[in-house]
Amino acid sequence: MKKFQTLRGFRDFLPEDARKRAWLRQKMVEVFERWGFEPLETPTLEPLELFKGEIGEDEKMFFKFEDPGGRKVALRYDQTVPTVRVVGQYFDKLIFPFRRYQIQSAFRAEKPQKGRYREFVQADIDILGVESPIADAECIAVSIDLYKSLGFTNVVALINNRDLLAGIPYPVIAAIDKIKKIGKDEVIKEIIKKGFSENDAKNFLTKVENLKPDEKLLTIFQYLEKSGFSRENFKFEPTLARSFSYSQGPIWEMIIPGYSTAAFGGSVGGGERYDGMIERITGKNIAGTGIAFGFDRTLEALEALNLIPKPKTVSQVLVTVFSPDLLVQSIKVAKKLREVGVSIELYPDDNTRLDKQLKYADKKGVPFVIVIGPEETKTGSVVVKNMSTGTQETLPLSELAGNINHYINT
Amino acid sequence: MKKFQTLRGFRDFLPEDARKRAWLRQKMVEVFERWGFEPLETPTLEPLELFKGEIGEDEKMFFKFEDPGGRKVALRYDQTVPTVRVVGQYFDKLIFPFRRYQIQSAFRAEKPQKGRYREFVQADIDILGVESPIADAECIAVSIDLYKSLGFTNVVALINNRDLLAGIPYPVIAAIDKIKKIGKDEVIKEIIKKGFSENDAKNFLTKVENLKPDEKLLTIFQYLEKSGFSRENFKFEPTLARSFSYSQGPIWEMIIPGYSTAAFGGSVGGGERYDGMIERITGKNIAGTGIAFGFDRTLEALEALNLIPKPKTVSQVLVTVFSPDLLVQSIKVAKKLREVGVSIELYPDDNTRLDKQLKYADKKGVPFVIVIGPEETKTGSVVVKNMSTGTQETLPLSELAGNINHYINT
Repeated sequence: MKKFQTLRGFRDFLPEDARKRAWLRQKMVEVFERWGFEPLETPTLEPLELFKGEIGEDEKMFFKFEDPGGRKVALRYDQTVPTVRVVGQYFDKLIFPFRRYQIQSAFRAEKPQKGRYREFVQADIDILGVESPIADAECIAVSIDLYKSLGFTNVVALINNRDLLAGIPYPVIAAIDKIKKIGKDEVIKEIIKKGFSENDAKNFLTKVENLKPDEKLLTIFQYLEKSGFSRENFKFEPTLARSFSYSQGPIWEMIIPGYSTAAFGGSVGGGERYDGMIERITGKNIAGTGIAFGFDRTLEALEALNLIPKPKTVSQVLVTVFSPDLLVQSIKVAKKLREVGVSIELYPDDNTRLDKQLKYADKKGVPFVIVIGPEETKTGSVVVKNMSTGTQETLPLSELAGNINHYINT
Repeated sequence: MKKFQTLRGFRDFLPEDARKRAWLRQKMVEVFERWGFEPLETPTLEPLELFKGEIGEDEKMFFKFEDPGGRKVALRYDQTVPTVRVVGQYFDKLIFPFRRYQIQSAFRAEKPQKGRYREFVQADIDILGVESPIADAECIAVSIDLYKSLGFTNVVALINNRDLLAGIPYPVIAAIDKIKKIGKDEVIKEIIKKGFSENDAKNFLTKVENLKPDEKLLTIFQYLEKSGFSRENFKFEPTLARSFSYSQGPIWEMIIPGYSTAAFGGSVGGGERYDGMIERITGKNIAGTGIAFGFDRTLEALEALNLIPKPKTVSQVLVTVFSPDLLVQSIKVAKKLREVGVSIELYPDDNTRLDKQLKYADKKGVPFVIVIGPEETKTGSVVVKNMSTGTQETLPLSELAGNINHYINT
């Protein structure tokens, strides 16, 4: 007998986790829609060529293969590139400014390690068709609003304009970008390793650290302030560079102080402008800006800071089945309760002993159990048992539907 | 310039469609949870071997490849087989009876044609760990409840017990299963083609048509009746066979009269018991029953019968930006409205002419537009324009938040 297991780097989400994920997803949708973003979905498979060239050094991380028709295809590597394809392909149909959100899986053939998965969910918001920094500001505002709505009161958006770093060699920028993770001294060492003198390295760093926000950034900061966000929640960070080859203009990262992972240095999402990439892929001069939130990292941060409401089991009541000849009574009770909107589970077997059914409810955490035995059937009543207190009450059947919500909510 | 297109057989869902899909998904979750089913998610990739052997003649329809580590993998072909893997892998952790729902993409390398896609969503519910026909009855009840809740008042569950067909050769069963699509005469022709005499063919058909429900089916029918479902919504159908090699015991298909496709003969979902498959995959003696609903087919049926609420745009109000120096006013108004829970879109550019912004709202179907010009700024007011009637009203800024829900909801 072969034992089948989940592939390495992939995950199953059993009900408890799946419920948490559904909760976070719903929260995200609420915030995104509050800011007027609309849903978009793209396929799991794309032409391999679409991603090639845009992702740069990461090409070895594609899940790629030939489909049965011999086409070279890749699993969705990110959501920005497919969205840019959509913008080119449906250009005449879409209404610009086009603001969309997208919450789907992305796939990377990375070495599996803590916090890194081969299939993971990204949540993106983007505004396409607008060059104004107001579009960047809106995306940053949604980023802050999202994490504040999730309960991270001290979230910080680190903001920079990649254009301010023009003139500094890319290897130096990439080294300086790591300053939050590895510190100043290590950054200088890394710049030297790239072939610069110690003096040059220090000068580059000093130059970057002393950069001042330009007009675009000042527009963004004003927007955020007038939108009611505290200065604690956003900050100019001249050393922020974002390592994507396509990043340009305003760039930002979301940091949750008090939560950090070795893999990500505390960042739960990063955004940038990518007008150039859109032109490369679509041949059209369309502006674009947006952010990808790490769904899994956000969920981990929520768990670490204990911000997820304790997930209840789906079922609020288990209706037990006393015996085969009393099954009909239980079916009727379940029906009555469903009609008043209660999530009901009928025990789906009439040959299981009552104590085993109660044990099932207990293990699963179903808060209330209903028993209809011969005595109850005769008198037209039911027994309602509160599983956490152990108390039980006999109630006329006619009063059950009217009272059940009272039981459940107290 | 290369033009990138969606791969054949795959689909993008632009906002209007994505909203409809989100609506259907939410409806399904509501119904499934009302019956105590809990969410489960499995990865997009599985070991190829997992599906092999269970799917039989369909193996050429796998999307399969070698991953970068040289493992043979396949895109999720269905949700039942991965769920069975989960049941084996987490046997000690799961609580039985285990009732789960799963709404994810499945992948088939089929020839693309109307109504058949290479990536499509399945919505499954299953009860694992129960041999009693009450479990089958519950799944059938959820099936009927789902379609009735969606507005298909005349949905029919065709029900049979595959065991009743024991002794009839499989090729004959497969031919008889097509009777709803091709009619009696064609079925007889097909049986003859399989090497039987005309007399035998007619005898088989007569025998099947005269089958009577057995005790299991009678239990199921009683359950459905006592659960309040009308006899119009479920029906014994002895010619129903389900063509899956693993089908056994109670089997059923959901039919929506008035909606039919050549490809599926009007069926929007099919279910069966598959205890044997679970034992083959996990080596454990665990019972299982459930149904896969075709998400896309259900959505098509909803559209065909005009049952989807006209999807509104996400944004309820567009706050326009009159000019760069008045941007701050617009930001403040947008903030105020978001605080009272309205979905707001701020036009993300302060250099776009007002008439263009209004045209954008009109094209997109945003129902209300707010304008704050120099006059309004001076008097502390805003202009609210109803885009469908064309009427507009000037309102003191202080009264806007209190009144906006009144505007939106009338």
